[in-house]
Amino acid sequence: MIDIEKVASSVSDLLLALGVERDSHTYDTPRRVAEAWAECLAGYDNDPVIHLDATFTGPSDPGLVVLSGIRLTSTCAHHLLPITGTATVAYRPRPGAPIVGLSKLARVLHGYARRLQVQEHIGYQVVEAIRQKLDPVGAACIITAEHGCISTRGVLERGVLTTTQATGGEWEPGHADLQAILAEHAARSV
Amino acid sequence: MIDIEKVASSVSDLLLALGVERDSHTYDTPRRVAEAWAECLAGYDNDPVIHLDATFTGPSDPGLVVLSGIRLTSTCAHHLLPITGTATVAYRPRPGAPIVGLSKLARVLHGYARRLQVQEHIGYQVVEAIRQKLDPVGAACIITAEHGCISTRGVLERGVLTTTQATGGEWEPGHADLQAILAEHAARSV
Ligand SMILES: Nc1nc2c([nH]c(=O)n2[C@@H]2O[C@H](COP(=O)(O)OP(=O)(O)OP(=O)(O)O)[C@@H](O)[C@H]2O)c(=O)[nH]1
Ligand SMILES: Nc1nc2c([nH]c(=O)n2[C@@H]2O[C@H](COP(=O)(O)OP(=O)(O)OP(=O)(O)O)[C@@H](O)[C@H]2O)c(=O)[nH]1
Repeated sequence: MIDIEKVASSVSDLLLALGVERDSHTYDTPRRVAEAWAECLAGYDNDPVIHLDATFTGPSDPGLVVLSGIRLTSTCAHHLLPITGTATVAYRPRPGAPIVGLSKLARVLHGYARRLQVQEHIGYQVVEAIRQKLDPVGAACIITAEHGCISTRGVLERGVLTTTQATGGEWEPGHADLQAILAEHAARSV
Repeated sequence: MIDIEKVASSVSDLLLALGVERDSHTYDTPRRVAEAWAECLAGYDNDPVIHLDATFTGPSDPGLVVLSGIRLTSTCAHHLLPITGTATVAYRPRPGAPIVGLSKLARVLHGYARRLQVQEHIGYQVVEAIRQKLDPVGAACIITAEHGCISTRGVLERGVLTTTQATGGEWEPGHADLQAILAEHAARSV
Protein backbone atom coordinates (compact mmCIF):
# COMPACT_ATOMS: atom_id res chain seq x y z
CA MET A 1 0.00 0.00 0.00
CA ILE A 2 1.31 3.40 -1.00
CA ASP A 3 1.52 6.29 1.47
CA ILE A 4 -0.38 8.88 -0.63
CA GLU A 5 0.71 11.81 1.55
CA LYS A 6 4.39 10.92 1.29
CA VAL A 7 4.18 10.38 -2.48
CA ALA A 8 2.32 13.69 -2.96
CA SER A 9 4.98 15.53 -0.98
CA SER A 10 7.79 14.00 -3.07
CA VAL A 11 5.91 15.03 -6.24
CA SER A 12 5.76 18.59 -4.84
CA ASP A 13 9.55 18.47 -4.43
CA LEU A 14 9.89 17.12 -7.97
CA LEU A 15 7.82 20.01 -9.41
CA LEU A 16 10.04 22.42 -7.47
CA ALA A 17 13.20 20.76 -8.85
CA LEU A 18 11.68 20.96 -12.35
CA GLY A 19 11.19 24.70 -11.84
CA VAL A 20 7.52 24.37 -12.80
CA GLU A 21 5.21 27.27 -11.96
CA ARG A 22 2.30 26.29 -9.68
CA ASP A 23 -0.95 27.60 -11.14
CA SER A 24 -4.59 26.45 -11.26
CA HIS A 25 -3.54 23.47 -13.42
CA THR A 26 -0.66 22.28 -11.26
CA TYR A 27 -2.02 23.25 -7.82
CA ASP A 28 -3.54 19.80 -7.27
CA THR A 29 -0.98 17.87 -9.37
CA PRO A 30 0.82 16.23 -6.39
CA ARG A 31 -2.43 14.68 -5.15
CA ARG A 32 -3.44 13.56 -8.67
CA VAL A 33 -0.03 12.07 -9.40
CA ALA A 34 0.03 10.28 -6.04
CA GLU A 35 -3.40 8.78 -6.73
CA ALA A 36 -2.30 7.82 -10.26
CA TRP A 37 0.74 6.07 -8.75
CA ALA A 38 -1.45 4.20 -6.27
CA GLU A 39 -3.53 2.98 -9.21
CA CYS A 40 -0.58 2.15 -11.47
CA LEU A 41 1.23 0.22 -8.71
CA ALA A 42 -1.84 -1.48 -7.22
CA GLY A 43 -0.35 -4.81 -8.31
CA TYR A 44 1.97 -4.70 -5.28
CA ASP A 45 -1.05 -4.90 -2.94
CA ASN A 46 -1.12 -8.68 -3.12
CA ASP A 47 0.54 -11.67 -4.73
CA PRO A 48 -1.16 -12.15 -8.14
CA VAL A 49 -0.99 -15.95 -7.83
CA ILE A 50 -3.83 -15.83 -5.27
CA HIS A 51 -6.22 -15.22 -8.18
CA LEU A 52 -5.57 -18.83 -9.23
CA ASP A 53 -6.44 -20.29 -5.82
CA ALA A 54 -10.11 -20.89 -6.61
CA THR A 55 -10.57 -23.66 -9.17
CA PHE A 56 -13.46 -25.54 -10.73
CA THR A 57 -13.78 -29.14 -11.83
CA GLY A 58 -12.96 -29.29 -15.55
CA PRO A 59 -14.17 -31.68 -18.25
CA SER A 60 -12.08 -34.85 -18.73
CA ASP A 61 -10.17 -33.02 -21.48
CA PRO A 62 -10.47 -29.22 -21.16
CA GLY A 63 -8.38 -28.60 -24.30
CA LEU A 64 -6.59 -25.34 -25.08
CA VAL A 65 -7.80 -22.16 -23.33
CA VAL A 66 -6.81 -18.81 -24.89
CA LEU A 67 -7.77 -15.39 -23.48
CA SER A 68 -6.79 -12.82 -26.11
CA GLY A 69 -7.25 -9.06 -26.58
CA ILE A 70 -6.55 -8.20 -22.93
CA ARG A 71 -5.86 -4.45 -22.73
CA LEU A 72 -2.62 -4.13 -20.83
CA THR A 73 -1.37 -1.05 -18.97
CA SER A 74 1.93 -1.12 -17.12
CA THR A 75 4.73 1.23 -16.07
CA CYS A 76 8.33 1.11 -17.29
CA ALA A 77 10.75 0.43 -14.42
CA HIS A 78 13.53 2.23 -16.28
CA HIS A 79 11.80 5.55 -17.08
CA LEU A 80 8.53 5.51 -15.08
CA LEU A 81 6.57 5.96 -18.33
CA PRO A 82 3.44 4.06 -19.47
CA ILE A 83 3.53 0.76 -21.35
CA THR A 84 0.26 0.12 -23.22
CA GLY A 85 -0.65 -2.87 -25.30
CA THR A 86 -2.57 -6.09 -25.74
CA ALA A 87 -1.90 -9.46 -24.15
CA THR A 88 -2.89 -13.07 -24.69
CA VAL A 89 -2.81 -15.56 -21.80
CA ALA A 90 -3.24 -19.26 -22.57
CA TYR A 91 -2.91 -22.66 -20.94
CA ARG A 92 -3.79 -26.30 -21.64
CA PRO A 93 -4.91 -28.03 -18.42
CA ARG A 94 -3.94 -31.67 -18.04
CA PRO A 95 -6.86 -34.09 -18.63
CA GLY A 96 -8.89 -34.26 -15.43
CA ALA A 97 -7.10 -31.32 -13.80
CA PRO A 98 -9.04 -28.37 -12.33
CA ILE A 99 -9.66 -25.22 -14.41
CA VAL A 100 -9.78 -21.55 -13.29
CA GLY A 101 -12.27 -18.79 -13.93
CA LEU A 102 -11.34 -17.04 -17.20
CA SER A 103 -11.24 -13.55 -15.66
CA LYS A 104 -8.60 -14.83 -13.22
CA LEU A 105 -6.13 -15.20 -16.09
CA ALA A 106 -6.57 -11.48 -16.82
CA ARG A 107 -6.36 -10.65 -13.10
CA VAL A 108 -3.00 -12.40 -12.79
CA LEU A 109 -1.72 -10.42 -15.78
CA HIS A 110 -2.97 -7.09 -14.38
CA GLY A 111 -1.52 -7.97 -10.96
CA TYR A 112 1.97 -8.16 -12.46
CA ALA A 113 1.41 -5.33 -14.97
CA ARG A 114 0.35 -2.87 -12.28
CA ARG A 115 3.89 -2.70 -10.93
CA LEU A 116 7.12 -1.10 -12.16
CA GLN A 117 7.89 -3.52 -14.93
CA VAL A 118 9.95 -4.75 -17.85
CA GLN A 119 7.82 -6.35 -20.57
CA GLU A 120 9.67 -9.70 -20.58
CA HIS A 121 9.12 -10.03 -16.81
CA ILE A 122 5.35 -9.59 -16.98
CA GLY A 123 4.98 -12.54 -19.36
CA TYR A 124 7.46 -14.69 -17.46
CA GLN A 125 5.72 -14.05 -14.14
CA VAL A 126 2.26 -14.83 -15.57
CA VAL A 127 3.50 -18.13 -17.00
CA GLU A 128 5.26 -19.03 -13.73
CA ALA A 129 2.10 -18.30 -11.72
CA ILE A 130 0.02 -20.60 -13.96
CA ARG A 131 2.69 -23.31 -13.85
CA GLN A 132 3.04 -23.14 -10.10
CA LYS A 133 -0.70 -23.22 -9.36
CA LEU A 134 -2.11 -25.36 -12.18
CA ASP A 135 0.78 -27.48 -13.49
CA PRO A 136 -0.70 -27.44 -17.03
CA VAL A 137 0.59 -29.18 -20.17
CA GLY A 138 1.63 -25.71 -21.34
CA ALA A 139 1.18 -22.03 -20.51
CA ALA A 140 1.94 -18.88 -22.50
CA CYS A 141 1.72 -15.11 -22.25
CA ILE A 142 2.21 -13.07 -25.43
CA ILE A 143 2.34 -9.28 -25.12
CA THR A 144 2.45 -6.60 -27.83
CA ALA A 145 2.99 -3.13 -26.41
CA GLU A 146 4.09 0.44 -27.08
CA HIS A 147 6.57 1.89 -24.58
CA GLY A 148 6.38 5.56 -23.61
CA CYS A 149 10.15 5.55 -23.24
CA ILE A 150 10.43 4.77 -26.97
CA SER A 151 7.51 6.89 -28.22
CA THR A 152 7.56 10.07 -26.08
CA ARG A 153 11.27 10.57 -25.37
CA GLY A 154 14.67 9.29 -26.57
CA VAL A 155 14.38 7.76 -30.04
CA LEU A 156 10.81 9.16 -30.27
CA GLU A 157 9.56 6.23 -32.38
CA ARG A 158 5.76 6.42 -32.40
CA GLY A 159 3.85 3.25 -33.28
CA VAL A 160 6.80 0.95 -32.65
CA LEU A 161 5.54 -2.23 -30.98
CA THR A 162 7.42 -4.78 -28.91
CA THR A 163 6.08 -8.34 -28.90
CA THR A 164 7.35 -10.78 -26.28
CA GLN A 165 6.56 -14.49 -25.91
CA ALA A 166 6.77 -16.25 -22.57
CA THR A 167 6.07 -19.97 -22.57
CA GLY A 168 6.29 -22.78 -20.05
CA GLY A 169 5.51 -26.46 -19.64
CA GLU A 170 5.86 -28.75 -22.64
CA TRP A 171 5.44 -26.05 -25.30
CA GLU A 172 8.57 -25.66 -27.40
CA PRO A 173 8.82 -23.07 -30.21
CA GLY A 174 6.77 -24.29 -33.19
CA HIS A 175 4.36 -26.37 -31.06
CA ALA A 176 0.85 -26.49 -32.61
CA ASP A 177 -0.75 -24.98 -29.47
CA LEU A 178 1.71 -22.11 -29.57
CA GLN A 179 1.02 -21.49 -33.26
CA ALA A 180 -2.73 -21.33 -32.54
CA ILE A 181 -2.11 -18.91 -29.65
CA LEU A 182 0.14 -16.65 -31.74
CA ALA A 183 -2.51 -16.54 -34.50
CA GLU A 184 -5.17 -15.48 -31.97
CA HIS A 185 -2.80 -12.89 -30.53
CA ALA A 186 -1.95 -11.42 -33.94
CA ALA A 187 -5.65 -11.18 -34.82
CA ARG A 188 -6.61 -9.41 -31.57
CA SER A 189 -3.70 -7.15 -30.72
CA VAL A 190 -4.16 -3.46 -31.41
CA MET B 1 17.14 24.72 -17.63
CA ILE B 2 16.50 21.80 -15.30
CA ASP B 3 18.88 20.91 -12.46
CA ILE B 4 19.32 17.20 -13.37
CA GLU B 5 20.93 16.33 -9.99
CA LYS B 6 18.10 17.88 -8.00
CA VAL B 7 15.43 16.20 -10.15
CA ALA B 8 17.18 12.81 -9.87
CA SER B 9 17.33 13.13 -6.10
CA SER B 10 13.61 13.95 -5.88
CA VAL B 11 12.87 10.91 -8.09
CA SER B 12 14.90 8.79 -5.62
CA ASP B 13 12.67 10.12 -2.83
CA LEU B 14 9.59 9.36 -4.92
CA LEU B 15 10.69 5.73 -5.45
CA LEU B 16 11.25 5.47 -1.70
CA ALA B 17 7.77 6.87 -1.00
CA LEU B 18 6.33 4.41 -3.53
CA GLY B 19 8.01 1.58 -1.63
CA VAL B 20 9.64 0.34 -4.82
CA GLU B 21 12.52 -2.12 -4.51
CA ARG B 22 15.79 -0.90 -6.07
CA ASP B 23 17.23 -3.59 -8.33
CA SER B 24 19.20 -3.70 -11.59
CA HIS B 25 16.21 -2.22 -13.44
CA THR B 26 15.54 0.67 -11.06
CA TYR B 27 19.11 1.40 -9.95
CA ASP B 28 19.57 4.04 -12.65
CA THR B 29 15.91 5.13 -12.83
CA PRO B 30 16.39 8.52 -11.10
CA ARG B 31 18.99 9.57 -13.69
CA ARG B 32 16.87 8.28 -16.61
CA VAL B 33 13.73 9.97 -15.33
CA ALA B 34 15.60 13.25 -14.74
CA GLU B 35 16.95 13.17 -18.31
CA ALA B 36 13.49 12.30 -19.62
CA TRP B 37 12.09 15.33 -17.76
CA ALA B 38 14.79 17.58 -19.20
CA GLU B 39 13.75 16.40 -22.66
CA CYS B 40 9.99 16.61 -22.06
CA LEU B 41 10.26 20.12 -20.56
CA ALA B 42 12.87 21.49 -23.00
CA GLY B 43 10.22 23.93 -24.24
CA TYR B 44 10.88 26.11 -21.18
CA ASP B 45 14.47 26.73 -22.38
CA ASN B 46 13.39 29.62 -24.56
CA ASP B 47 10.36 31.59 -25.73
CA PRO B 48 8.93 29.67 -28.73
CA VAL B 49 8.02 32.92 -30.54
CA ILE B 50 11.73 33.46 -31.32
CA HIS B 51 11.40 30.76 -34.01
CA LEU B 52 9.26 33.22 -35.98
CA ASP B 53 11.87 36.02 -35.86
CA ALA B 54 13.56 35.09 -39.14
CA THR B 55 11.30 35.78 -42.11
CA PHE B 56 11.58 35.68 -45.90
CA THR B 57 10.05 37.86 -48.57
CA GLY B 58 6.85 36.17 -49.76
CA PRO B 59 5.08 36.30 -53.14
CA SER B 60 2.53 39.10 -53.57
CA ASP B 61 -0.18 36.66 -52.45
CA PRO B 62 1.27 33.71 -50.47
CA GLY B 63 -2.15 32.09 -50.07
CA LEU B 64 -3.03 29.54 -47.38
CA VAL B 65 -0.14 27.63 -45.72
CA VAL B 66 -1.00 24.38 -43.91
CA LEU B 67 1.52 22.18 -42.09
CA SER B 68 -0.29 18.95 -41.17
CA GLY B 69 0.67 15.59 -39.69
CA ILE B 70 3.04 17.06 -37.08
CA ARG B 71 3.71 14.37 -34.47
CA LEU B 72 3.03 16.00 -31.13
CA THR B 73 4.35 14.87 -27.73
CA SER B 74 3.48 16.81 -24.60
CA THR B 75 3.02 16.24 -20.87
CA CYS B 76 -0.23 16.63 -18.94
CA ALA B 77 0.03 19.37 -16.29
CA HIS B 78 -2.63 17.66 -14.19
CA HIS B 79 -1.18 14.13 -13.97
CA LEU B 80 2.37 14.38 -15.41
CA LEU B 81 1.46 11.74 -18.01
CA PRO B 82 2.20 11.81 -21.77
CA ILE B 83 -0.05 13.44 -24.34
CA THR B 84 0.59 12.07 -27.87
CA GLY B 85 -1.08 13.08 -31.07
CA THR B 86 -1.01 14.92 -34.38
CA ALA B 87 -1.21 18.64 -35.02
CA THR B 88 -1.90 20.96 -37.91
CA VAL B 89 -0.57 24.53 -37.90
CA ALA B 90 -1.82 26.95 -40.57
CA TYR B 91 -1.79 30.63 -41.45
CA ARG B 92 -2.67 32.92 -44.35
CA PRO B 93 -0.11 35.74 -44.65
CA ARG B 94 -1.46 39.13 -45.77
CA PRO B 95 -0.60 39.93 -49.41
CA GLY B 96 2.96 41.28 -49.52
CA ALA B 97 3.70 40.30 -45.90
CA PRO B 98 6.80 38.23 -45.01
CA ILE B 99 6.57 34.43 -44.68
CA VAL B 100 8.41 32.08 -42.28
CA GLY B 101 10.34 28.88 -42.83
CA LEU B 102 7.88 25.95 -42.68
CA SER B 103 9.82 24.03 -40.03
CA LYS B 104 9.48 27.07 -37.75
CA LEU B 105 5.74 26.46 -37.49
CA ALA B 106 6.50 22.99 -36.12
CA ARG B 107 9.21 24.40 -33.84
CA VAL B 108 6.77 26.85 -32.27
CA LEU B 109 4.35 23.99 -31.64
CA HIS B 110 7.04 21.76 -30.08
CA GLY B 111 8.28 24.70 -28.00
CA TYR B 112 4.88 24.97 -26.30
CA ALA B 113 4.22 21.21 -26.28
CA ARG B 114 7.49 20.42 -24.47
CA ARG B 115 6.16 21.94 -21.27
CA LEU B 116 3.60 20.86 -18.68
CA GLN B 117 0.49 21.48 -20.68
CA VAL B 118 -3.25 21.43 -21.22
CA GLN B 119 -4.19 20.66 -24.83
CA GLU B 120 -6.31 23.81 -25.34
CA HIS B 121 -3.37 25.99 -24.20
CA ILE B 122 -0.90 24.54 -26.72
CA GLY B 123 -3.13 25.49 -29.66
CA TYR B 124 -3.99 28.90 -28.20
CA GLN B 125 -0.32 29.73 -27.60
CA VAL B 126 0.73 28.67 -31.12
CA VAL B 127 -1.98 30.85 -32.68
CA GLU B 128 -1.06 33.79 -30.44
CA ALA B 129 2.63 33.48 -31.38
CA ILE B 130 1.79 33.55 -35.11
CA ARG B 131 -0.61 36.46 -34.64
CA GLN B 132 1.87 38.46 -32.61
CA LYS B 133 4.82 37.95 -34.97
CA LEU B 134 3.19 37.75 -38.40
CA ASP B 135 -0.20 39.48 -38.08
CA PRO B 136 -1.73 37.15 -40.71
CA VAL B 137 -5.25 37.15 -42.15
CA GLY B 138 -5.84 34.04 -40.06
CA ALA B 139 -3.98 31.44 -38.02
CA ALA B 140 -5.06 28.05 -36.66
CA CYS B 141 -3.73 25.13 -34.66
CA ILE B 142 -5.75 21.91 -34.62
CA ILE B 143 -4.63 19.08 -32.34
CA THR B 144 -5.90 15.50 -32.04
CA ALA B 145 -4.32 13.65 -29.13
CA GLU B 146 -4.59 10.74 -26.73
CA HIS B 147 -4.04 11.58 -23.05
CA GLY B 148 -2.24 9.14 -20.74
CA CYS B 149 -4.46 10.35 -17.90
CA ILE B 150 -7.48 9.02 -19.82
CA SER B 151 -5.89 5.88 -21.31
CA THR B 152 -3.57 4.52 -18.58
CA ARG B 153 -5.37 5.48 -15.36
CA GLY B 154 -8.77 6.76 -14.18
CA VAL B 155 -11.45 6.02 -16.79
CA LEU B 156 -8.91 3.83 -18.66
CA GLU B 157 -10.35 4.69 -22.09
CA ARG B 158 -7.83 3.52 -24.69
CA GLY B 159 -8.05 5.06 -28.17
CA VAL B 160 -10.14 8.02 -27.04
CA LEU B 161 -8.99 11.13 -28.90
CA THR B 162 -9.43 14.79 -28.02
CA THR B 163 -9.50 17.28 -30.90
CA THR B 164 -9.12 20.98 -30.13
CA GLN B 165 -9.33 23.92 -32.53
CA ALA B 166 -7.57 27.19 -31.84
CA THR B 167 -8.09 29.97 -34.35
CA GLY B 168 -7.20 33.65 -34.59
CA GLY B 169 -7.36 36.58 -36.95
CA GLU B 170 -10.33 36.88 -39.29
CA TRP B 171 -11.23 33.17 -39.35
CA GLU B 172 -14.66 32.57 -37.85
CA PRO B 173 -16.11 29.03 -37.53
CA GLY B 174 -17.23 27.86 -40.98
CA HIS B 175 -14.70 30.03 -42.88
CA ALA B 176 -13.52 28.34 -46.11
CA ASP B 177 -9.86 28.41 -45.02
CA LEU B 178 -10.77 26.71 -41.77
CA GLN B 179 -12.77 24.03 -43.58
CA ALA B 180 -9.77 23.31 -45.82
CA ILE B 181 -7.48 23.12 -42.77
CA LEU B 182 -9.83 20.79 -40.90
CA ALA B 183 -10.03 18.50 -43.94
CA GLU B 184 -6.21 18.32 -44.13
CA HIS B 185 -6.06 17.65 -40.40
CA ALA B 186 -8.63 14.87 -40.52
CA ALA B 187 -6.77 13.22 -43.42
CA ARG B 188 -3.38 13.32 -41.67
CA SER B 189 -4.08 12.76 -37.98
CA VAL B 190 -3.29 9.31 -36.61
N1 LIG C 1 14.25 -5.38 -22.54
C1 LIG C 1 13.57 -4.30 -22.17
N2 LIG C 1 14.13 -3.08 -22.25
C2 LIG C 1 13.41 -2.02 -21.84
C3 LIG C 1 12.10 -2.12 -21.35
N3 LIG C 1 11.70 -0.87 -20.98
C4 LIG C 1 12.75 -0.02 -21.23
O1 LIG C 1 12.84 1.18 -20.95
N4 LIG C 1 13.78 -0.72 -21.80
C5 LIG C 1 15.06 -0.24 -22.28
O2 LIG C 1 15.96 -0.05 -21.20
C6 LIG C 1 17.09 0.62 -21.72
C7 LIG C 1 17.66 1.56 -20.66
O3 LIG C 1 18.87 1.97 -21.19
P1 LIG C 1 19.69 3.22 -20.62
O4 LIG C 1 20.05 2.98 -19.19
O5 LIG C 1 20.77 3.52 -21.60
O6 LIG C 1 18.57 4.37 -20.59
P2 LIG C 1 18.42 5.62 -21.58
O7 LIG C 1 17.15 6.30 -21.20
O8 LIG C 1 19.64 6.45 -21.53
O9 LIG C 1 18.31 4.88 -23.03
P3 LIG C 1 17.56 5.34 -24.38
O10 LIG C 1 17.71 6.83 -24.47
O11 LIG C 1 18.23 4.57 -25.47
O12 LIG C 1 16.10 4.94 -24.26
C8 LIG C 1 16.62 1.33 -23.00
O13 LIG C 1 17.19 0.67 -24.11
C9 LIG C 1 15.09 1.09 -22.98
O14 LIG C 1 14.51 1.03 -24.29
C10 LIG C 1 11.51 -3.41 -21.31
O15 LIG C 1 10.34 -3.58 -20.92
N5 LIG C 1 12.27 -4.47 -21.73
N1 LIG D 1 -9.53 20.50 -20.64
C1 LIG D 1 -8.53 19.67 -20.39
N2 LIG D 1 -8.64 18.80 -19.37
C2 LIG D 1 -7.59 17.99 -19.12
C3 LIG D 1 -6.41 17.99 -19.86
N3 LIG D 1 -5.55 17.09 -19.31
C4 LIG D 1 -6.20 16.56 -18.22
O1 LIG D 1 -5.72 15.78 -17.39
N4 LIG D 1 -7.46 17.07 -18.13
C5 LIG D 1 -8.51 16.78 -17.17
O2 LIG D 1 -8.28 17.44 -15.94
C6 LIG D 1 -9.22 16.93 -15.01
C7 LIG D 1 -8.59 16.91 -13.63
O3 LIG D 1 -9.65 16.61 -12.77
P1 LIG D 1 -9.45 16.14 -11.25
O4 LIG D 1 -8.75 17.21 -10.48
O5 LIG D 1 -10.79 15.65 -10.78
O6 LIG D 1 -8.39 14.94 -11.40
P2 LIG D 1 -8.66 13.37 -11.29
O7 LIG D 1 -7.37 12.69 -11.64
O8 LIG D 1 -9.22 13.06 -9.93
O9 LIG D 1 -9.79 13.14 -12.43
P3 LIG D 1 -10.14 11.84 -13.33
O10 LIG D 1 -9.91 10.64 -12.45
O11 LIG D 1 -11.57 12.04 -13.76
O12 LIG D 1 -9.23 11.85 -14.51
C8 LIG D 1 -9.61 15.53 -15.53
O13 LIG D 1 -10.95 15.60 -16.00
C9 LIG D 1 -8.67 15.33 -16.74
O14 LIG D 1 -9.23 14.53 -17.77
C10 LIG D 1 -6.33 18.89 -20.97
O15 LIG D 1 -5.34 18.95 -21.71
N5 LIG D 1 -7.41 19.71 -21.19
